[in-house]
Amino acid sequence: MTESYSELNHVSYDPLVKESRVANLGSFITPTENFYIRNHYLEVPDFSETTWNLEVKGHINSPLSLTMNAIRALPKKELDITLECAGNSRSYMMPEAEGIQFNHGAVSTGTFMGVSLNTILDLADLKSTAKEIIFSGGDLGTEEEDGAVFSNTLTYQRSLTLDQVRDENILLAYEMNGSPLTRDHGFPLRLMVPGWYGMASVKWLVSIEATEHSFNGFFQKNRYILVPEGAEGRTLGEPVTKLGVKTLISTPRHGEVIYKGPFTFSGFAWSGWGLVTKVEISVDGGTTWNQARLINNQSPTAWRKWEFTWQANNTGHFIVKARAYDSKGNVQPSNVPWNFRGYANNCIQSIAIRVASKRP
Amino acid sequence: MTESYSELNHVSYDPLVKESRVANLGSFITPTENFYIRNHYLEVPDFSETTWNLEVKGHINSPLSLTMNAIRALPKKELDITLECAGNSRSYMMPEAEGIQFNHGAVSTGTFMGVSLNTILDLADLKSTAKEIIFSGGDLGTEEEDGAVFSNTLTYQRSLTLDQVRDENILLAYEMNGSPLTRDHGFPLRLMVPGWYGMASVKWLVSIEATEHSFNGFFQKNRYILVPEGAEGRTLGEPVTKLGVKTLISTPRHGEVIYKGPFTFSGFAWSGWGLVTKVEISVDGGTTWNQARLINNQSPTAWRKWEFTWQANNTGHFIVKARAYDSKGNVQPSNVPWNFRGYANNCIQSIAIRVASKRP
Repeated sequence: MTESYSELNHVSYDPLVKESRVANLGSFITPTENFYIRNHYLEVPDFSETTWNLEVKGHINSPLSLTMNAIRALPKKELDITLECAGNSRSYMMPEAEGIQFNHGAVSTGTFMGVSLNTILDLADLKSTAKEIIFSGGDLGTEEEDGAVFSNTLTYQRSLTLDQVRDENILLAYEMNGSPLTRDHGFPLRLMVPGWYGMASVKWLVSIEATEHSFNGFFQKNRYILVPEGAEGRTLGEPVTKLGVKTLISTPRHGEVIYKGPFTFSGFAWSGWGLVTKVEISVDGGTTWNQARLINNQSPTAWRKWEFTWQANNTGHFIVKARAYDSKGNVQPSNVPWNFRGYANNCIQSIAIRVASKRP
Repeated sequence: MTESYSELNHVSYDPLVKESRVANLGSFITPTENFYIRNHYLEVPDFSETTWNLEVKGHINSPLSLTMNAIRALPKKELDITLECAGNSRSYMMPEAEGIQFNHGAVSTGTFMGVSLNTILDLADLKSTAKEIIFSGGDLGTEEEDGAVFSNTLTYQRSLTLDQVRDENILLAYEMNGSPLTRDHGFPLRLMVPGWYGMASVKWLVSIEATEHSFNGFFQKNRYILVPEGAEGRTLGEPVTKLGVKTLISTPRHGEVIYKGPFTFSGFAWSGWGLVTKVEISVDGGTTWNQARLINNQSPTAWRKWEFTWQANNTGHFIVKARAYDSKGNVQPSNVPWNFRGYANNCIQSIAIRVASKRP
């Protein structure tokens, strides 16, 4: 990598995985150097704009091979998008689940600019027989499972059905926070699917293919599946799709010492299923709950800031929890059913803080 | 250190802390190379028998300064003793608790030989005013808290009241598993207090002192205290004493793949409060429970082996839990109240396994 990531917590080198520090998630937009990274393979594509085209192919009437200049010439669209890894908070799954052991920092929000996917699909003129759209990244690697090697030239691929793909907020993004995408965030072009866990937002996008069939790629059928207790094998279960309603306490940090008097907790809440309508805070380990103030206007594609001011009258240790609600009636749960790969853990976060009598 | 610990999981170098691998805890007696180590300071005493005496002093009528030859000449007593660190399973406390993040492997059982502490106390002829007995290790270090340095020549010290100290099973041990204590296990002499968490079993024992007062040492009053939610400061709460009733699943390991047909789970259960009377196993995440067979005869100072044979009729993922009961009516809990330093977490352990249809 050419970038350095001193502001991120190291999770893995192969593939490169770095998670955000929760204390660095205090601003609505996460600066790029604080934005979590989850790659799938050790080798990261090193495209330049001159060696890269986006191929649009398959069951379409207008095959396209677009340069970045062509893509930039199309109407631009900018959105604030909250991206959360499907494995975020996996380390809190009990019993421990298979996979990279993320704490709560595999979530971030950026401003993404690009072209609406709909614009490209309209240009491509899909055939009426098209059923799914397959998005292929430029990253290559090997996957093994139960001793079987799936492919030694497997690119990262995901599909969306025609129903899913017609969301007007899906972008082909080439800028993040006002600059071209960095290499680890998918330069030159990344599919951004707001409201879905991050696996849907394919980096280093090299092709978009319309198909008549249901896509059975490795990352569609062998990964990102909620394999529950009692399920047969490793792949049977519901696919991971939209972000579960969830909130993060960004201030104070777990273990922080605060002082008697007023103290303002803050954090962010999000849901892929609806708008965030309420956030509640408990300072007694979940026995009683207080309503937080919702701060920024709700964006359908990004998290919402909340604050809660507490009068800390007593010294001692306090367990703080936060839970979010969305407009579809979803409430963040105290317990999340275990699944083999520990995906989509939106269990209520709890932190412990200490109230001291006065500043030292 | 002169010893190598390739069979133990590394936890910390300063101080040296190594935990047992749960898969290495399948035998009633834990081989010394698999026995967990929890030191308190970087520098480990390097005694030889010629430079070491045990001082017995304070409110006694017969001050003693005993060599190892003298101690070995006293009546010998041998006991199988289960030792568990007060911080064992701390990493499973929610929210995360302060301290070394042990998984479930800071527990082991050894055969210890030495002299009964009562024999030494009888020789010392305690004065009637004696109230507590202070045990001092030869390990020195510095402790800081809230910016205050407690001592730069603080040895590890713990006390027991006269009621507590007259337990006939308390040993001054010089052998472990048939050999002299190793340096990291407290050579040449270790106080062994069966049924208590490991902090009571002082290593590198250099003095035994009878006092008229209640002992206020750092490791008696500032550590090993269950500081609960809502408590003032860092030291108010009940002291950690005897081992909570608990069991460990040693076979299969978390994440293991087993095959359809009969499979025997096994593990060990212990309690410092009474004898282990029952162990139950759930293979459906805690919904239903089955009684395990208790194998070895109960020792009041060591864990008890259990086995449970399951007919695995279906493939898939299964969450296995085990819980123990003791003769004082204690049941291992599903939830343990949070405490600041995460001591005494005897919460039910759960593991996930997968049943496959046949061997590959």
